[in-house]
Amino acid sequence: MDVGSTKRDVIDAARRVLRDQVGVFVPAHPIAGKELSGVEHADPDLYMGRQVILTPIERTLTAQLDKAQKVWSALGCHVKMMSPEAHDAAYAAVSHLPHVLAYSLMNAIKAQPQADDFLGLAGPGFRDFTRIAASEPAIWRDILLTNREELLAQTRHFQRALQAFEAAIQSGDPVALETLIENASHARATWRMTAIKPQS
Amino acid sequence: MDVGSTKRDVIDAARRVLRDQVGVFVPAHPIAGKELSGVEHADPDLYMGRQVILTPIERTLTAQLDKAQKVWSALGCHVKMMSPEAHDAAYAAVSHLPHVLAYSLMNAIKAQPQADDFLGLAGPGFRDFTRIAASEPAIWRDILLTNREELLAQTRHFQRALQAFEAAIQSGDPVALETLIENASHARATWRMTAIKPQS
Repeated sequence: MDVGSTKRDVIDAARRVLRDQVGVFVPAHPIAGKELSGVEHADPDLYMGRQVILTPIERTLTAQLDKAQKVWSALGCHVKMMSPEAHDAAYAAVSHLPHVLAYSLMNAIKAQPQADDFLGLAGPGFRDFTRIAASEPAIWRDILLTNREELLAQTRHFQRALQAFEAAIQSGDPVALETLIENASHARATWRMTAIKPQS
Repeated sequence: MDVGSTKRDVIDAARRVLRDQVGVFVPAHPIAGKELSGVEHADPDLYMGRQVILTPIERTLTAQLDKAQKVWSALGCHVKMMSPEAHDAAYAAVSHLPHVLAYSLMNAIKAQPQADDFLGLAGPGFRDFTRIAASEPAIWRDILLTNREELLAQTRHFQRALQAFEAAIQSGDPVALETLIENASHARATWRMTAIKPQS
């Protein structure tokens, strides 16, 4: 098994390296993590109540897949199966793109002469929005590059959505702007994580 | 006093309405809030340990400003003074822009046919990044429109930063990409909220 954030690239590597034995490999991605790395930040409850995505290929052995499911279930995870392609498209949208946006916000602020004054005034909304920007750079460099095509498709979707906001703000159109905000707000207010971590 | 998120517009309104009495008005912005509105979500500790920004004008009466400071200090706030212009520029960068980005991400995802599948797979990083997208639409419509010029200046800074990421990802340049991520990650990892709310 692996625990990587993209699945097509690790499957390609497994096919190259394991060749006829590739069926023993079960591609896995637990949806849990922290912006802090290193063993000193280890958390025995990290996987409790979280989703884990398994993306078997046609050659994956059923016995291995069953074992993998049992391991993750025993750790308290909700196991979900999907194709590597569906996985990589989904996480480009809900994880890789948000990381790029959080990084871009930090860099956009730091590029301005008043950066330190601005940052000194930021509050809890900024704290939560940018939390993922503190993640380990080398890991995220690799995630973004291995999922490049899906990620760039998502940045194009995002650019269109941002341009709609800019147009409504530029033209000062309160009805258009409120509609855009309401759609986003409703989508977020009705969203729930599939597996909620119990309050600790 | 007011508690609004933009200061120049409320000062303009105070000048128009209060005229010769405008000196009694102290423009205030507490850096605290929730994505939930309504009295049923009231929180007696909302202001505890938070910053509040006062933006007096040349005509503000010293006695009124002192009273305002005492009220906020008594609520547990760290009081900071600045010009209305500096306030509105800073919060365009660290609050209003992040809201627009969170809204745009939600709308970009909802515009795709796989939106519900994508959202069902989202985890804690997505949850924190998009929390501010659930804020009250009518309030945020007004904030974004009243701070339009500063906000559009910030979206232009952001576009440049995002384009740098897209270029590094498109070209598959690991060194350029890691440098961009490291700059963002370092800026975020070294950032601390000026007034930290005690753990409750």
